[in-house]
Amino acid sequence: MKEDTATNEEAIRDLIDSYVNAIRNHDIEAVVSAYAPDLVAFDVVPPLRSVGAERYRKVWQEVFAMLEKPIPYDIRDLSISAGDEVAFSHSLNRNGGTMKNGRKLDLWLRWTACYRKIDGNWKITHMHASVPVDLQTGKAMAELKP
Amino acid sequence: MKEDTATNEEAIRDLIDSYVNAIRNHDIEAVVSAYAPDLVAFDVVPPLRSVGAERYRKVWQEVFAMLEKPIPYDIRDLSISAGDEVAFSHSLNRNGGTMKNGRKLDLWLRWTACYRKIDGNWKITHMHASVPVDLQTGKAMAELKP
Repeated sequence: MKEDTATNEEAIRDLIDSYVNAIRNHDIEAVVSAYAPDLVAFDVVPPLRSVGAERYRKVWQEVFAMLEKPIPYDIRDLSISAGDEVAFSHSLNRNGGTMKNGRKLDLWLRWTACYRKIDGNWKITHMHASVPVDLQTGKAMAELKP
Repeated sequence: MKEDTATNEEAIRDLIDSYVNAIRNHDIEAVVSAYAPDLVAFDVVPPLRSVGAERYRKVWQEVFAMLEKPIPYDIRDLSISAGDEVAFSHSLNRNGGTMKNGRKLDLWLRWTACYRKIDGNWKITHMHASVPVDLQTGKAMAELKP
């Protein structure tokens, strides 16, 4: 049977939309519900690798404590590839906004999200967020814009 | 129709094995043939995003010019999720070896690879490689070990 590519892609697009809106609105339950419980994450900051969605409840709570609501979180160059059970997306995600100390944040992350359909619902089972680095100088290149 | 998960996962595992062996042995054609022509890459070094497999011919040629053959390239914590048309894998990849100037390289990268079956053959259509960074100090955390 041919996979229903259009329907699956639409489902992933809806999930990403909900996830981004949840981030914008500090909706911690909706953010965490996008993840599978055994999420494997390669995040922009250490550690090298983390396992488990519950860890991200704390990570996002710290982000939400730091940034005024709503967070201007935007996605560009989004590409989605979706089969019936397995999917992935990649995009450039802008983490913007005003910190509660008045400092402005404007950080573009490369974001790869990988999904599995679990009991009929798509969940993020793996995500990878990063900025490039200069291996000669050891510096993070956190100011690059698309 | 239930997707043939085991067969698809085995095909992805074979592709990764071939790819890693090609890197170890400086086999540039075999490395580049693992990629789809329109590969979208988020690499450990700038730019933020690149498109096209041919760019990586030059990238790998520069790596091969720098490192003695064979390159001790190893993968751990590999996870593969594969449908009939779409798949992804994530792992920690050790880029080791001796540079031709005698300096030792020992860099662990987080590696996410995303695949599509194109004309019956699995190809890497997206890859994301990175090290974590410290956003406070602006430093790349290139010395982390799993």
